[in-house]
Amino acid sequence: MKYYAIIVAGGKGNRMNQDIPKQFIELDGKPVLMHTIQSFYNCVLNPEIILVLNSEQHRFWKELCHTHSFSIPHQVIEGGKERFDSVKNGLAVVKGDGVVAVHDAVRPLASTALIMASYQMALAEGNAIAAIQPVDSVRIKKEGQHSLSLNRDELFLIQTPQTFVTEQLRRAYLQPYSDAFTDDASVVEKAGFSINILPGERSNIKITYVQDLELASFLLKKQGS
Amino acid sequence: MKYYAIIVAGGKGNRMNQDIPKQFIELDGKPVLMHTIQSFYNCVLNPEIILVLNSEQHRFWKELCHTHSFSIPHQVIEGGKERFDSVKNGLAVVKGDGVVAVHDAVRPLASTALIMASYQMALAEGNAIAAIQPVDSVRIKKEGQHSLSLNRDELFLIQTPQTFVTEQLRRAYLQPYSDAFTDDASVVEKAGFSINILPGERSNIKITYVQDLELASFLLKKQGS
Repeated sequence: MKYYAIIVAGGKGNRMNQDIPKQFIELDGKPVLMHTIQSFYNCVLNPEIILVLNSEQHRFWKELCHTHSFSIPHQVIEGGKERFDSVKNGLAVVKGDGVVAVHDAVRPLASTALIMASYQMALAEGNAIAAIQPVDSVRIKKEGQHSLSLNRDELFLIQTPQTFVTEQLRRAYLQPYSDAFTDDASVVEKAGFSINILPGERSNIKITYVQDLELASFLLKKQGS
Repeated sequence: MKYYAIIVAGGKGNRMNQDIPKQFIELDGKPVLMHTIQSFYNCVLNPEIILVLNSEQHRFWKELCHTHSFSIPHQVIEGGKERFDSVKNGLAVVKGDGVVAVHDAVRPLASTALIMASYQMALAEGNAIAAIQPVDSVRIKKEGQHSLSLNRDELFLIQTPQTFVTEQLRRAYLQPYSDAFTDDASVVEKAGFSINILPGERSNIKITYVQDLELASFLLKKQGS
């Protein structure tokens, strides 16, 4: 069986007060994205790594790789307008049958164990969506309405990797784009497949705010120890 | 105006592999609960601190206070069967009108600014419920059904402090207990008051799992610096 990792560097980082996109910010001496690629490279299933990046960032990435003597083999593919388009572009270079993990470039802390479990569950059940449950109460507030309490036992905070057998992912990405596609699970679900939740990791944070970098650095040191 | 903080130490800590309840576990040299009490003590509004604790833990707490020479003035009140009963017991010792913050004993990291903002918003608008919005996609999965994607812009992860003018809280706690009361906001909402969300803090974590202690220690050092 062939394994793939599509690493998607979306967003322009507008929630951080930094001009540099989040995936390129330095975390313990190297860009966030290099940590992310490394975590898939460490997987014994030896996934082929496909990095999807806005074309205007390709040169910068190449320079970063040179500066950091980063030598993990990976293909660099052109990103699209929406995350949906980027994943679709990455998927286009996957040939034949296999298992494909889609992962956020800005989640540098997914453990080897989580990545492995994700490939295994997807192989066995068609897909595997990493998620954790909230420890806090959760409320929903629709425009112009009062907030309502939700049952947190029924709620899942979705992470990546989101891993699929090629058949599911290919069929899903034949659909036209919809605003409701917030992640790959929602695309695959819309195509008629049911979603399997895999226990994620609280440490598998998405670098979203400046303060997340310090936290990521702390978690990274813990992981290494 | 008189200010109060009801600090509720519920739960038996069964999610942590520790025999000692979470509020008593040491965090940077002193029990979690002492950090929590300290954060309200630091508030310039000088809230009266009411600690609600299972009666079987009163002696242990007294010993801890002695060992740590902990001298912040606070009343210790007997906890009830459910969190609802504990808050009700705490509220019973609040006399006259005022503003009452209800806070989890195991949230030692609420900042002075958040506590202050919570009292001010509650005084102006009747209540203030600290909450943050999820950065991840969120799904809901009901028993026997497939999971469904939710709109994360409409979702709030609820924290404490949850702060109320005495009139709202007293009226709410006249109601009979219901399983749907997951926090004070849900109790007050059931009594007919609408809930005001106050931007919380990502660092205001609830100590739920063993690994949270290391994270809390990291955040505490950051807060102090």
